[in-house]
Amino acid sequence: MKKLIGKAPGLGVILVGERKDSRSFVRIKKKACEDVGITSVVVELPEDCTEGEVLEVVSALNHKELIHGILVQLPLPCHLSEQKILNAVNVEKDVDGFHPVNIGNLAMIGREPLFIPCASRGCIEVLHRYGVEITGKKVVVIGRSNITGLPTSLLLQKHHATVSVVHTFTKNPEGITREADVLVSDVGIPNMVRGHWLKPGVVDSKGSHVTGDVCYEEAILKASLITPVPGGVGPVTISMLLYNIVEAAKRTYQWAEKS
Amino acid sequence: MKKLIGKAPGLGVILVGERKDSRSFVRIKKKACEDVGITSVVVELPEDCTEGEVLEVVSALNHKELIHGILVQLPLPCHLSEQKILNAVNVEKDVDGFHPVNIGNLAMIGREPLFIPCASRGCIEVLHRYGVEITGKKVVVIGRSNITGLPTSLLLQKHHATVSVVHTFTKNPEGITREADVLVSDVGIPNMVRGHWLKPGVVDSKGSHVTGDVCYEEAILKASLITPVPGGVGPVTISMLLYNIVEAAKRTYQWAEKS
Repeated sequence: MKKLIGKAPGLGVILVGERKDSRSFVRIKKKACEDVGITSVVVELPEDCTEGEVLEVVSALNHKELIHGILVQLPLPCHLSEQKILNAVNVEKDVDGFHPVNIGNLAMIGREPLFIPCASRGCIEVLHRYGVEITGKKVVVIGRSNITGLPTSLLLQKHHATVSVVHTFTKNPEGITREADVLVSDVGIPNMVRGHWLKPGVVDSKGSHVTGDVCYEEAILKASLITPVPGGVGPVTISMLLYNIVEAAKRTYQWAEKS
Repeated sequence: MKKLIGKAPGLGVILVGERKDSRSFVRIKKKACEDVGITSVVVELPEDCTEGEVLEVVSALNHKELIHGILVQLPLPCHLSEQKILNAVNVEKDVDGFHPVNIGNLAMIGREPLFIPCASRGCIEVLHRYGVEITGKKVVVIGRSNITGLPTSLLLQKHHATVSVVHTFTKNPEGITREADVLVSDVGIPNMVRGHWLKPGVVDSKGSHVTGDVCYEEAILKASLITPVPGGVGPVTISMLLYNIVEAAKRTYQWAEKS
C-alpha cells in the first residue's frame, strides 16, 4: 500500500498506567504493525492522569491525518470513564469497533459497521477457515462483555446462527451449552467448561486467555474441533486488527484494492 | 408539565405515502398524544417523494425547538433508504430508539441508550406488571427485526435473562421454544407458534399484530400467562412512546420530576 500511494497506514495507541498485561499486548500489536508496514505511535500516560488528559490525546489523534486507526488499551484505571473515552474516538478511526455506533450497526440487520471488534471477527474467521458452517447452527456464547462476548454473539447472529448467550445469571448453563453445535467461550475462568457441558461433535472456539475456559483434556474427547489456548483465536485477533487498520487507511484515501 | 414550565412536549411525525396501516398507526399515536397534552405535528409526504425531501423534513424537525421527539413512520417506500433517513434523526430526538447509537448503547453492558424502542419497552413493562421475574430466566425471542425482535432481545439480556433468538434460518425452532420460560414472538405469521412449541407454564408475550403469531386456543392450555391479540403489548407500546417523548422534553428543559 505504501509503495502504491506513498503513505503507510498509521495506528495511534493510548496506553494508560503500568499494567504488565496491557504493556505486553501493546508491544505485540506494535510489533505486528511493524511487520506489515503499519506505522504505529504509542502515547503513554501515567496511571494517575486525568480523564481530560486522555480525552485531549484522543482528540489530537482524531485530528492527525496520518493516524487512521485509534486504539485505547483496556482496561483503563477505575477513575477514568471508559465509556466517555471510547465514545470520543472518531467512529471512522475506531479500529477496535467498540464505539456504540459500530456496535449498533453490527447488531442491526441490513447495516454494516465500519469496524467489527477484532476478537469477534477472529472467531468467525477461524470457523470459516475450518469450514464450519454457521448459518442455522445452534451457537452458544459464554460471556457478554462489550469487547468480546456481546459483539461475537451479534456477529454470529448476523451470520444467521441461532444464538444463545450464557452469563453469570444463567441457571443451569451446562444444560444450554450441551445443546450447542458451536461453543464460543470468553470469560477467563480456567477450565470452567467441563466435558459434560459439551455435546459430542461440538466445535469449540475461544478467546486468548493464557489458560482456556474450556477443560481441554476433557473437551478433546467430545469436540470435533477445538482451538487450543494459548494459540487459538488470539493471533487471528491481531491479524483482524491489522486488517481493520488497513481498511481505515484505504477508506481515508478511498483506495480500493483491485481484486 | 405544561402547567409547570409553560411548554408542552412536542412530537414530529413523518408519514410518507398512503399505506392504510401506517395512516392508522399515526392517527392512534396522534390521538394518544392529544389525550396527555403532547403537541404533535404530522408532516405528510407523497409516495413518490425523493430521499432529499424526506431528509430536509428530518433536518427541519431536528432544528425545531418545540419538537422534542421525531418519529418516521415505517415502512418507507422502497426507493427511500430507511437507514439514511433514520440515521439523520438527531439522537436526542430519536423517541423510537432506532438510531444505531441508541441500539448500540442498548446492547452494551454498563451503557444506557437515550431511548429504548417502544415495543421492546412495552414487552418488559407487561412482564414487570404481571410480576414475571426476568433475571436468569430462559427467554426465547422469535424474530430479529431491527424494530422489535432485535431490541427486545438486547433489552431482555440487559435485564439478565438468558436469551436465545430464533429466526428464519433456525432449524427445529420448536425444540428451542419448548425450553423457554418466557416466549416473545413478533414475526407476524398468524398462529405460527402451536401448542407443542410451548413448555407447560410458559409466559407468552407478543407484538401488536391483528392476528397473533401464537395459536391462542392451543397456547392457553399450556401457558401460565399470555397476552391476547389484538390488545396485548400494542397499547402499552403507545404508552412507552408517550413516555419517551416526555423524557425527551424533560431532558431538553433539564427538568427532573420531583419524586
